[in-house]
Amino acid sequence: MKKIVLIRHGESTWNKENRFTGWADVDLSPAGVEEAQAAGRLLKAEGYVFDIAFTSTLKRAIRTLHFGLDAMDLAWIPEEKHWRLNERHYGALTGLNKAETAQKYGDAQVLVWRRSYDIPPPLMEPGDAANPARDARYASLRPDEVPRGECLKDTVERVMPYWNERIVPAVKSGQRVLVAAHGNSLRALVKHLDGIADDKIVELNIPTARPLVYELDDAMKPIRSYYLGDAEEIARAAAAVANQGKAK
Amino acid sequence: MKKIVLIRHGESTWNKENRFTGWADVDLSPAGVEEAQAAGRLLKAEGYVFDIAFTSTLKRAIRTLHFGLDAMDLAWIPEEKHWRLNERHYGALTGLNKAETAQKYGDAQVLVWRRSYDIPPPLMEPGDAANPARDARYASLRPDEVPRGECLKDTVERVMPYWNERIVPAVKSGQRVLVAAHGNSLRALVKHLDGIADDKIVELNIPTARPLVYELDDAMKPIRSYYLGDAEEIARAAAAVANQGKAK
Repeated sequence: MKKIVLIRHGESTWNKENRFTGWADVDLSPAGVEEAQAAGRLLKAEGYVFDIAFTSTLKRAIRTLHFGLDAMDLAWIPEEKHWRLNERHYGALTGLNKAETAQKYGDAQVLVWRRSYDIPPPLMEPGDAANPARDARYASLRPDEVPRGECLKDTVERVMPYWNERIVPAVKSGQRVLVAAHGNSLRALVKHLDGIADDKIVELNIPTARPLVYELDDAMKPIRSYYLGDAEEIARAAAAVANQGKAK
Repeated sequence: MKKIVLIRHGESTWNKENRFTGWADVDLSPAGVEEAQAAGRLLKAEGYVFDIAFTSTLKRAIRTLHFGLDAMDLAWIPEEKHWRLNERHYGALTGLNKAETAQKYGDAQVLVWRRSYDIPPPLMEPGDAANPARDARYASLRPDEVPRGECLKDTVERVMPYWNERIVPAVKSGQRVLVAAHGNSLRALVKHLDGIADDKIVELNIPTARPLVYELDDAMKPIRSYYLGDAEEIARAAAAVANQGKAK
């Protein structure tokens, strides 16, 4: 039996401000730092050890990983950062306050943009200063790989090659793997692992900085999965994520 | 012309307590964290950008790198951690207070152990809980690669293959490289780059968390080298390192 642990980054400054974040490289909030440290302490207390970590190129995931590894005394393990684990790109919605957007377009349209599987948000303008094509960290990507807005289907499609080519071989070789990523890149992995239908994955809410353990058989099929920590507290954290897109 | 930046970790809790550290995995002191952040801010202010970072498997170097990269907004660049960049292994002296050791053995013997090129310290016992052979992070090393005490010559000999095989190719390919390491692993690199004689390298003191820039020609020969920051302040920091081994 093999195990892999997935963790969404701790609360970011834009989670707190209720803004569409996507590929905007915002930092953890002080509460997010504490969440990441608490996750590391919890993993350590439960006896978890890791041989390698994978994360995105966005600092809220990278720093969650680092605070977590520091708390586990595992800062020394190899880590790989890759854009394919980034959050879903929210296109022209990036930076907008979710509640304001909901007031303007209505809860239903915002929920479509946030949670539909294959309807992308309005694309970011090519000349937008936040266009990833203008960011040095994405300079090695082919032009057709650089998103200016993604539906969840797009995110799934660019996450899966990385899962198959980098993460699965590590797990199969016996390495204990930690993945620190984002709500939607992790949703892509959970959709794949649990075989969740396109129209059901939108209902899945992944709370911040709660270690999600998958026990896998040799064919990488889940035997069972569970969050570490207090179940009621985790349910509250997931509900908080679900409510972010509603007008206030 | 190519550039590489070397940086020694910020002050550790054992630097502060004046103890032989070596491969003991002690953390940065609060002052060390501030030094690392200040180094990152200085590098950013001077316009430095990096494409890849190399560091050791010891948290005081890894965390110096991370605090520095965070301050430069470069947390996303690839980083590689390797034991060959670790501090010199201080053998049975590991953990001893330097001033107490000097009182017991005399300043001269301590200076020999700290600063002679080819006289190793007394070796650590195989059964010592701190023997790296018992540490998971060194499990992939061949038994003959795991030190139980090193003279500077030993450190140079295990640093250089990593320099030649990993760092030089990165620099030659045009990548802008940052190396976050330790007093003696950096001394090994400086000895090589500047062609310093065995009996002179002992006099070289590298201050904590001060970026040391080498400008190199295409053959990796130094054109010039310099510390970033205030020259007088750097000289004081280097002198503080030189005085650590003296009895108080």
